[in-house]
Amino acid sequence: MGSEFTVDVSARYRDLDPMNHVNHAVYASYLETGRTTYLREIGGIDSGTISFVIVNLEISYERPITIDDDPTIALAVTGLGESSCTMDYEIRVDGDIAATAETTIVHVDPESGRPSPIPDGVAQRIREYEAIETPG
Amino acid sequence: MGSEFTVDVSARYRDLDPMNHVNHAVYASYLETGRTTYLREIGGIDSGTISFVIVNLEISYERPITIDDDPTIALAVTGLGESSCTMDYEIRVDGDIAATAETTIVHVDPESGRPSPIPDGVAQRIREYEAIETPG
Amino acid sequence: MGSEFTVDVSARYRDLDPMNHVNHAVYASYLETGRTTYLREIGGIDSGTISFVIVNLEISYERPITIDDDPTIALAVTGLGESSCTMDYEIRVDGDIAATAETTIVHVDPESGRPSPIPDGVAQRIREYEAIETPG
Amino acid sequence: MGSEFTVDVSARYRDLDPMNHVNHAVYASYLETGRTTYLREIGGIDSGTISFVIVNLEISYERPITIDDDPTIALAVTGLGESSCTMDYEIRVDGDIAATAETTIVHVDPESGRPSPIPDGVAQRIREYEAIETPG
Repeated sequence: MGSEFTVDVSARYRDLDPMNHVNHAVYASYLETGRTTYLREIGGIDSGTISFVIVNLEISYERPITIDDDPTIALAVTGLGESSCTMDYEIRVDGDIAATAETTIVHVDPESGRPSPIPDGVAQRIREYEAIETPG
Repeated sequence: MGSEFTVDVSARYRDLDPMNHVNHAVYASYLETGRTTYLREIGGIDSGTISFVIVNLEISYERPITIDDDPTIALAVTGLGESSCTMDYEIRVDGDIAATAETTIVHVDPESGRPSPIPDGVAQRIREYEAIETPG
Repeated sequence: MGSEFTVDVSARYRDLDPMNHVNHAVYASYLETGRTTYLREIGGIDSGTISFVIVNLEISYERPITIDDDPTIALAVTGLGESSCTMDYEIRVDGDIAATAETTIVHVDPESGRPSPIPDGVAQRIREYEAIETPG
Repeated sequence: MGSEFTVDVSARYRDLDPMNHVNHAVYASYLETGRTTYLREIGGIDSGTISFVIVNLEISYERPITIDDDPTIALAVTGLGESSCTMDYEIRVDGDIAATAETTIVHVDPESGRPSPIPDGVAQRIREYEAIETPG
């Protein structure tokens, strides 16, 4: 099993909504911060050339996040297809789980916008980090 | 069947991300705009006292939204429990479906933060609008 | 004098902060929506190729904006230099002035990022709309 | 002279706009993060009861901020009136100044929304930290 990948984010005042909690849409931005950091640090993808698009997002909200919390995003790649990549997440605050989530992203050709194979080097680095068996 | 409920939103420059499309997290804010408008206009809930929290969000992304698009959020209540409410959504641009989504929200007591029954008047108005059979 | 340029925006639930008013930073996004619309519609600039950067922003906040308000952004170009453009704004709600603002933007060469002359066609269209005298 | 007050923020992918830089409106949220942290840590104000409203904001943009930057917000109170407070800011990246800014906030009575004196304890703590002479 690969070592766990985590990214710390800081709640900002602008993340709060009238209920004085971090707005539910901001959780998606927290996940995205984790995901883009993972793709850069583990996948070796330059931030200026991210060519993944998200096709599915699911978030289960377990408890509110307040301005005093320091959320940690933990994530792992749970599925790696020819052009798609599925990740599971936990958003943790103070040892509690504030939310769990899953996303599926698809690698696209920047010109055509159509699905295209994840570059071998990127897929290889992710497989090594996650200790996923190479198919076949 | 009830009449369809729709809300128009306008894409803003700030909604865009480096791919020059509306960022995926902003879709959740578009849905929220539809949902809070529905709860105010159909449910009769004053915007200052929204006491629903979201417990689940799922979005399937079908195509990008650009700055030139004028998205319409169409939504319907598909489930109404004692304290929970499930809604289905379509985000439409130019007759296309840009995304489909489902949310579940739970009515909470503002003091305790714990689930509490949706007020009768609100549930009744939603049932009438959606032409949902009253249980029992 | 040119005719007044206005753009309507819609307050979204996500624009609100814990004080239940539109957060002050969102005013800057409202102004930006007005500005980019102006540059597209009056200046004839394609939204995919906006090559202006903002160098100065000043906002005076006069009254809060709530979720029930429908803000209108009124703006005019008050200064047009070789590469810079100054605009004055009013954010209006219900006939009241919610904020006044001024921005200065500079046209830059997308390659070098350095100031470069505003294209003649763009400057000409703005001068005609604003009925600004051509210098010299 | 008081010791300098700084707060680190992290650029998020959602902060970027189509120019691949942190959007200019997000600078205002960075400043707000610095300001609310200052009011909490130095002023002793509980985050749930912030009763200041912003009346003026001015930002001068010096250079872009990218996803790879780790901005630091440095701020100081430069004026403290009976109900108003003026702060100066620098947003720094890699030893460079990315922006300078000034805000004026006014303490308001949460009931009436009208200006009210800054509580003595808060004003006293700020004066001590900033080594501002007590007037009179």
